[in-house]
Amino acid sequence: MFKVRVFVTLRESVLDPQGNAVKNALHSMNFNEVNDVRIGKYMELLIDKNVADLDASVKEMCEKLLANIVIEDYRYEVEEVVAQ
Amino acid sequence: MFKVRVFVTLRESVLDPQGNAVKNALHSMNFNEVNDVRIGKYMELLIDKNVADLDASVKEMCEKLLANIVIEDYRYEVEEVVAQ
Repeated sequence: MFKVRVFVTLRESVLDPQGNAVKNALHSMNFNEVNDVRIGKYMELLIDKNVADLDASVKEMCEKLLANIVIEDYRYEVEEVVAQ
Repeated sequence: MFKVRVFVTLRESVLDPQGNAVKNALHSMNFNEVNDVRIGKYMELLIDKNVADLDASVKEMCEKLLANIVIEDYRYEVEEVVAQ
């Protein structure tokens, strides 16, 4: 089994109102050392070992569903795990 | 400047309806090799280098705001970056 960790983040050029809101909340709690906050999605996928082409498959999932490639970037990490 | 990557995920014991919905959507797109999907939050924080105790500060931010520690786990990674 493969555990694939997918990180989806807004592109640098895209405004992040949610990140801004969290930054302001942290400042109101006196965490003034925080300069910037960017919020994204983190997904863990468990994928069968017998998948034909793991990279192609993960890229396609990201580009078709998991990320909005117009405004988001994605990256992923693969780890082999023992099936539970 | 420190870049802190925070990963917030639902505890294993907590049902993940959002992850389930994504898994079903991937199956409907013929990505049948996907066995499970867990969805979480990914945050990137830029923090001043002169923070007194970075670990204590990040832990407190996570436990007070960024994660709901009743149902979520969090972990983080720290990287030193050049201020832009």
